[in-house]
Amino acid sequence: MRVSKQRIEEDLKYLAQFSADTGGKGITRLPFTPEDRACREAIIKKFKAAGLHVYTDGIGNIYGRREGKRPDLPPVMIGSHLDTVINAGIFDGPAGVVAGLEVVRVLNDLSIQTERPLEVANFVIEESTAFGKSCVGSRAVAGVLDYDELARLKDKNGRSLQDAFKEHGVTKKEIEATRREKGSIDSYIEMHIEQSDNLIKAGKPVGLVTAIAAATRFQVTVKGQASHSGATPMGERKDALCAAAEIILGIEKIAAAEAGNETVGTVGNVTVKPGAINVVPGEAVLAIDLRDIDKADKDKAAEKIIALFESVGKEREVQVEYLITASDTPVPASPRVLGAIKNAAREVDIPHLVMHSAAAHDAAYLAEVADMGMIFIRSYGGSHNPDEWAEFEDVAMATEVLLEATLRLSS
Amino acid sequence: MRVSKQRIEEDLKYLAQFSADTGGKGITRLPFTPEDRACREAIIKKFKAAGLHVYTDGIGNIYGRREGKRPDLPPVMIGSHLDTVINAGIFDGPAGVVAGLEVVRVLNDLSIQTERPLEVANFVIEESTAFGKSCVGSRAVAGVLDYDELARLKDKNGRSLQDAFKEHGVTKKEIEATRREKGSIDSYIEMHIEQSDNLIKAGKPVGLVTAIAAATRFQVTVKGQASHSGATPMGERKDALCAAAEIILGIEKIAAAEAGNETVGTVGNVTVKPGAINVVPGEAVLAIDLRDIDKADKDKAAEKIIALFESVGKEREVQVEYLITASDTPVPASPRVLGAIKNAAREVDIPHLVMHSAAAHDAAYLAEVADMGMIFIRSYGGSHNPDEWAEFEDVAMATEVLLEATLRLSS
Repeated sequence: MRVSKQRIEEDLKYLAQFSADTGGKGITRLPFTPEDRACREAIIKKFKAAGLHVYTDGIGNIYGRREGKRPDLPPVMIGSHLDTVINAGIFDGPAGVVAGLEVVRVLNDLSIQTERPLEVANFVIEESTAFGKSCVGSRAVAGVLDYDELARLKDKNGRSLQDAFKEHGVTKKEIEATRREKGSIDSYIEMHIEQSDNLIKAGKPVGLVTAIAAATRFQVTVKGQASHSGATPMGERKDALCAAAEIILGIEKIAAAEAGNETVGTVGNVTVKPGAINVVPGEAVLAIDLRDIDKADKDKAAEKIIALFESVGKEREVQVEYLITASDTPVPASPRVLGAIKNAAREVDIPHLVMHSAAAHDAAYLAEVADMGMIFIRSYGGSHNPDEWAEFEDVAMATEVLLEATLRLSS
Repeated sequence: MRVSKQRIEEDLKYLAQFSADTGGKGITRLPFTPEDRACREAIIKKFKAAGLHVYTDGIGNIYGRREGKRPDLPPVMIGSHLDTVINAGIFDGPAGVVAGLEVVRVLNDLSIQTERPLEVANFVIEESTAFGKSCVGSRAVAGVLDYDELARLKDKNGRSLQDAFKEHGVTKKEIEATRREKGSIDSYIEMHIEQSDNLIKAGKPVGLVTAIAAATRFQVTVKGQASHSGATPMGERKDALCAAAEIILGIEKIAAAEAGNETVGTVGNVTVKPGAINVVPGEAVLAIDLRDIDKADKDKAAEKIIALFESVGKEREVQVEYLITASDTPVPASPRVLGAIKNAAREVDIPHLVMHSAAAHDAAYLAEVADMGMIFIRSYGGSHNPDEWAEFEDVAMATEVLLEATLRLSS
């Protein structure tokens, strides 16, 4: 391998030190905190040490640019994020930024100047932990960040994201200026740990991402009639939980058999009121998550689920009220970029799995302005918790694929 | 009517003053408290004022005896309880004790001496609020109170019921001495508010109880496999909530269509772990309540429910673990006592509904030693809460039926 596992490991451990005190349990680096500022300064120093020209955009995303032979061409960009959840692991998302930096260092070592410029990016506020909204920096790049909404997004102290930005000199004007034109970035590659166990199960260190799935989410409230469990005959009940059970099994059937091959539907939680053993449930609230990598299949499944709400409500004479709390669009990888990544993986002969991403990433928004691809790293212990862990060997292998793909896209 | 609505109303309002300070929300009279002691002293004074001979048994149940022409015959007993839940209404269960007292006063007014002796009873610790066990006094009369279990039943301060009894001079010996021989009480009638709304729906003030239903209760834990809602294909899931939903609908079907006419089955609560919208549920805990007035039907339904646990567990490859947390026996009213109550209701021409009791009562234990019957009073606002309310007119009408039935059984 041309990339250095040792440099990658050193960088990730170095960045992990910028953390709020979490009593030894993982790292915590929320936006606008001293540890976040220190980490941003650290990555800027590292970028500069690697010879990159550093600049930031309106919202504060950091870019390190390595000039190409043709400075006029749109750049190839490698990016991810440095902010974390509370008590996070050290890989999500610094691995993707460090990988971009390592690609630059290898090119320096090998004295390669690419045709296209190369940029390494750190997007701000990817995690929704602090303000309840994910991918804030990349949404701004894509031009889909609603400035007015920022006033409604508040942290636990009640400070709005709009006010937090204002304190840092970021107003509506700066956020609008963050938007990039479509095609102004040639291609964007994000390397990230997989946040599930498909690579573990497949026994492969690296994943090549075909598409980023998106979710439609429902919050459903079933309103029946609470009554005494002993005194209410079966035929006179309006049992909210029985109606909820039909919805749960109906969603399973729709996702498994009546929608697309990749459709998944989950009822992740039910809460019952009053929730006593001797009372027929009067109310049940369901949290429903529907995902697909194909928009048409997801829309079809969502329609069937809404029809299910209606038929169960009618048949059981209960009210089924629903809110659609999310309705995002799945994003396929660019065939050109995915092709380059596949060829790269074969060229450097690294075992890999072609797969889709179940979780959302900045890459989904960068796809609005650039041809997009993603590379996954096998990760143990899940993500968003201190047990998240990837082998540095696996990170290095993914970075080797990234290096080769970057060479192919930027030559 | 021979009974006095006014006296009944005065008595109930008088007894309601013996309460812990609950900030104006209903009344609270837990066992072994100053308010409980004061209430016991008050009822003893009232019994004595009505000419009753007062005695207590080993566990502290209070009896007021009115002698019959034949003192050697087993008495007719009218009883209920004076302890309450926290923030209770004023009727559950003082109405039954006051009704017995009123029957005595009417007999005094009319100078009637019955053949059989008459006793009015107050059974201790009917409510499970303080120590988690109901009908303690009446269980002791029936000889089914396990002394050793009392050491394990603790109040919120950690004091065991065994210790609380000891402080009041009640040891194993006294509890064993509380047991009465079968047939030593001729008949037992309990008057109680209905704890559901069947009388309201029927538009009748009085209910004649054919049987006291009993419950079999299960606590079921379904253990599947928690996994990422986006990354786990439908075919690879072990979704504990989907398995739980099959159990919920299966229990509904068994109770409604595959068991007895009076069988009711309820899943009153489900809790899901981890309970997040983006995680396939790994565990679901269900609280199941099965009731019937027919033991054979209930046992048959319980068998089908257990078979359901097994088939769902096998088919979905999840673990379904269950605990049977209660398995009580339904108690039919004595045909002789129920007949006397029915004839009484017709004789005094009071509108009534023949019905069963969904809730448990001291009467279920007295049935071990006496021929048992129950009379229900229409009650609004449920029970076990400050909104519980019966019209005093309805209480008087039920007491009139009780009076007539008592005359028929004791003459």
